[in-house]
Amino acid sequence: MSQDEHPLQSTTITESNVPLLEGLTTTRAIRRYRDEPIPEAHLRDMLFAATRAPSGSNRQPFRFIVLTDSANAHKAKSLIAGSAQEIWAQKEQNDGYSKGSGADPNSPKSRMANTMRSYVDNFATVPALILPCLVRYRAADPMEGASVYPAVQNLLLAARALGYGGVITGFHRPVEKELKSLLGIPEDIFIASTVTLGKPQGNHGPVRRRPIRELVFADAWEHSPAWAVDPPGTRFTSAGPPKNKT
Amino acid sequence: MSQDEHPLQSTTITESNVPLLEGLTTTRAIRRYRDEPIPEAHLRDMLFAATRAPSGSNRQPFRFIVLTDSANAHKAKSLIAGSAQEIWAQKEQNDGYSKGSGADPNSPKSRMANTMRSYVDNFATVPALILPCLVRYRAADPMEGASVYPAVQNLLLAARALGYGGVITGFHRPVEKELKSLLGIPEDIFIASTVTLGKPQGNHGPVRRRPIRELVFADAWEHSPAWAVDPPGTRFTSAGPPKNKT
Repeated sequence: MSQDEHPLQSTTITESNVPLLEGLTTTRAIRRYRDEPIPEAHLRDMLFAATRAPSGSNRQPFRFIVLTDSANAHKAKSLIAGSAQEIWAQKEQNDGYSKGSGADPNSPKSRMANTMRSYVDNFATVPALILPCLVRYRAADPMEGASVYPAVQNLLLAARALGYGGVITGFHRPVEKELKSLLGIPEDIFIASTVTLGKPQGNHGPVRRRPIRELVFADAWEHSPAWAVDPPGTRFTSAGPPKNKT
Repeated sequence: MSQDEHPLQSTTITESNVPLLEGLTTTRAIRRYRDEPIPEAHLRDMLFAATRAPSGSNRQPFRFIVLTDSANAHKAKSLIAGSAQEIWAQKEQNDGYSKGSGADPNSPKSRMANTMRSYVDNFATVPALILPCLVRYRAADPMEGASVYPAVQNLLLAARALGYGGVITGFHRPVEKELKSLLGIPEDIFIASTVTLGKPQGNHGPVRRRPIRELVFADAWEHSPAWAVDPPGTRFTSAGPPKNKT
């Protein structure tokens, strides 16, 4: 096959009709996937977009390990699935997901718990598992994430553009050593997160956050400017896991 | 003025025609700004988009301090400008920006050095300075950046969508203590970066990175898949500051 005929030689395989600003405000964490593999051309486009992100001095210390259907991929998925199931079972109990409003199967709390349970139970069969990694050039530093997480966000946004969705987790952390051994990742590499990707069973759409006056200040800490007003129709959520644990 | 008449009540003030995927691959670091303030409605849209980013357990631990034209804003800009000028002067010397190809005023190295010198020299008058901060809920952790830098990337992408541009730096770090005192930022808050924003003097467009086969692996570390092919016309750059220091 000559280079000219290669399907990956087109500039962009799939045209996305989502405008940039709309994409930024409507990319949800997607945890339920259809049982469909992601074509290599789409993986290429997503990873290409991820690697366009900025990094300190343009050092590009980010690396992405893509795991879909190989023996290693299945082993890595199973390894992290086990960790995910343990972490979630613990969190579900600690954060009281089945108590309080969690007893009502239609409450947001119950629905979140159901989504998470289904996510960890099906983790071993996610269409694609990506491990974004950071090659450090100096000792670990709190600002080093500025050279890898913008690329992770680009990955999630590119997935959105191409009709996919995903979510960032830290479920690899308890099995980091085994993962490094399985995939030949050098000891000094930081596995920055676990990202799962696939065709959403649900839909993207406006996300819920705290009112922006609680998040956006001007001129001084906790001084919210008059212009920090959410657009009409914005729906809100409080921050973090359930507060009501009883 | 009733809520209905408030200019910030429109869903989006400026329609962006940049498609999402294209926006991700053509957002450059912008360091030269036109001398134009950013209207509050645009600041609002950018910060709204920033706060739509994901964070661990949707805790939304990110906060943004926006500094434009107040007394505090001018003081903060001047403070960081001084630090930026010192850091750049040191780096220019250490990394040999004026040596080797840097002696040729048209080399990429010289042009980069000129851009950086102009950036730090004009830092005190950037149209907007944003300090993204992280409210920690546990001890500092290498993965905490996953809850603030995706929001910073959204901010830069939203700027792109609305005709602006910006860049992430760490120039605040040597003056963090003075900044916290000036702006009333509590001791335990992590200032995650400095972001400057404004109307670009130049243009956005395709960015240069290493070939994706060096950044994207499948199934194992440093095992580049056949599909990791850059689109035709992609231009490359090596990683990081100049290697040739003589």
